[in-house]
Amino acid sequence: MELKTPYLLFLGDVPDALAAKTAIGIVEWRPEWCVGQFRMEGCGADCGIDDLSIEEAVTRGCKTMVIGVVNAGGVLPDHWIDNIVRALDAGLDVASGLHMRLEDNARIREAAERSGAQLHNVRHSNRKWATGKGTKRRGKRVLAVGTDCSVGKKYTALALEREMRGLGMDADFRATGQTGVFISGRGAAIDAVVADFIAGAAEWISPAAESDDHWDVIEGQGSLFHPSFAGVSLGLLHGSQPDALVICHEPTRKTMRGVETLLPSIQEVIDLNLACGRLNNPDIRCVGLAVNTQALEENEAKGYLAKLTAEYGLPATDPVRFGMREIAQRLKDGF
Amino acid sequence: MELKTPYLLFLGDVPDALAAKTAIGIVEWRPEWCVGQFRMEGCGADCGIDDLSIEEAVTRGCKTMVIGVVNAGGVLPDHWIDNIVRALDAGLDVASGLHMRLEDNARIREAAERSGAQLHNVRHSNRKWATGKGTKRRGKRVLAVGTDCSVGKKYTALALEREMRGLGMDADFRATGQTGVFISGRGAAIDAVVADFIAGAAEWISPAAESDDHWDVIEGQGSLFHPSFAGVSLGLLHGSQPDALVICHEPTRKTMRGVETLLPSIQEVIDLNLACGRLNNPDIRCVGLAVNTQALEENEAKGYLAKLTAEYGLPATDPVRFGMREIAQRLKDGF
Repeated sequence: MELKTPYLLFLGDVPDALAAKTAIGIVEWRPEWCVGQFRMEGCGADCGIDDLSIEEAVTRGCKTMVIGVVNAGGVLPDHWIDNIVRALDAGLDVASGLHMRLEDNARIREAAERSGAQLHNVRHSNRKWATGKGTKRRGKRVLAVGTDCSVGKKYTALALEREMRGLGMDADFRATGQTGVFISGRGAAIDAVVADFIAGAAEWISPAAESDDHWDVIEGQGSLFHPSFAGVSLGLLHGSQPDALVICHEPTRKTMRGVETLLPSIQEVIDLNLACGRLNNPDIRCVGLAVNTQALEENEAKGYLAKLTAEYGLPATDPVRFGMREIAQRLKDGF
Repeated sequence: MELKTPYLLFLGDVPDALAAKTAIGIVEWRPEWCVGQFRMEGCGADCGIDDLSIEEAVTRGCKTMVIGVVNAGGVLPDHWIDNIVRALDAGLDVASGLHMRLEDNARIREAAERSGAQLHNVRHSNRKWATGKGTKRRGKRVLAVGTDCSVGKKYTALALEREMRGLGMDADFRATGQTGVFISGRGAAIDAVVADFIAGAAEWISPAAESDDHWDVIEGQGSLFHPSFAGVSLGLLHGSQPDALVICHEPTRKTMRGVETLLPSIQEVIDLNLACGRLNNPDIRCVGLAVNTQALEENEAKGYLAKLTAEYGLPATDPVRFGMREIAQRLKDGF
């Protein structure tokens, strides 16, 4: 999936910021790609960028209208259709993070056929994938892996890309989930790929680089210890053939998200990821810990991170509170 | 996927036994489900069972015509369509192991709609799966895992089921690949499931048993060490929550099937499968080694298996040459 930029962010009439989380994330990480937002009457979300009509967005060079919102039920509300058809008629591509496919609506499908515009459904994968090959590709790779799902792997990877670029490194975030695909303009929701092709899709997501010094900063998914999603995590680890791992963790969680399984220790997560990652990269090593300390007071968080640093001999940080500078520096100096 | 039995095996006009491997496997393991075979002019394959017309098969109580052959290109030859339509018009379901879906042919789709018969495409998954939960289910489970793909996991599981039943145990083969689905009448090609649902599909394939003494004998897929398919293997391991593992191996292979990665050692395969399997079953253990010794002379094979038995302290056998008795007995006595 490769999206044309810049974007117009379609917010529809969703009630609040939570429903527009994806759109807000795009503005946070790629403000230069967002010409404006399109809001309908009653919309309670605001990305803090210009409100534009579709015609104004086209004038500003917009190429794709992004539906970066979720509404109750995940379906496309009837009263959004007119505006989506207008965007297509104005020559824009439309990319959606909704569960339903855009082309399942006849008016949208016909409008896209009429204008020749592309419809992208980032939760779905229409691509014909190859199976993973496991052969070494050019360039360097760092993968964010987790003790659990939803512990901040995407944020960690994006914050790391930003710090690495700040240090003058040639680094690109690589997306494996829907919000990440909007943010990077390319990638795939790897959990939507047919099981045979997880590693193959990961190899496509992080292709051979043009230089030995280029870094791919790859968004992780799930956890090798999650009883629902570990297969996705292992295929992604193999296909990514990372040189370096960052372990993401949320310290107050007791059980894995959505199930009753207890959280593994950080050490178990390091050990199993290194053991499995060696298959395609014998030199794989762990370079740091990224902890979501939101539930802790600032001093408590600092104490906890200091304890982890001592225990694991690795930089431990909260990417939101304290940034990723030390881990980025470690990648710059150590590889 | 749940198929109605008994079957009529459709062989078309494939040139040889290799192309009818699936059908031959069904007759080998489930002769009581095969009322006969249907062959067209020029067919060079023979399952060694009665040649029947579709009408004769119906008279003998047949419920499903199984297309258990592959032809060049994996597509459905035009000159087979008439007979498939006749089977549907005669009230039979049709199940196919071909890559293309039966309903993609308009005449077949219309015939199925006309008669109300079911079309099954065992290489595809239309089912809505749940994600894996990881909670303990009733009954006992043994999973065949491999050092590589195509080392005899399906044969091992079927031979083990046969031996266990021979010992009076309540055991059912559980299918995770297309030939296995035909042989068990139920199951799913787990590599065709969307990545998010591998473990969930495995939980459905091996559901809660009605008694504590019931054994599911689960067909493995891939290998945790295969750079293309390890994600499938891990999701299957988690979803199967096995009490026991049988390790399958082919001793003359140097690199993993289809890639350049070296084969892992048997010890590595035991260790990683136990480490990962503990997530959903802390008591998981390895009960034996099943080796495909086809490439060795009989005495050489016996010597190799004796060496493995001594080295790993586990029964080592070739299920084709020497059967699975000792491993079945170990499951009977040890759990």
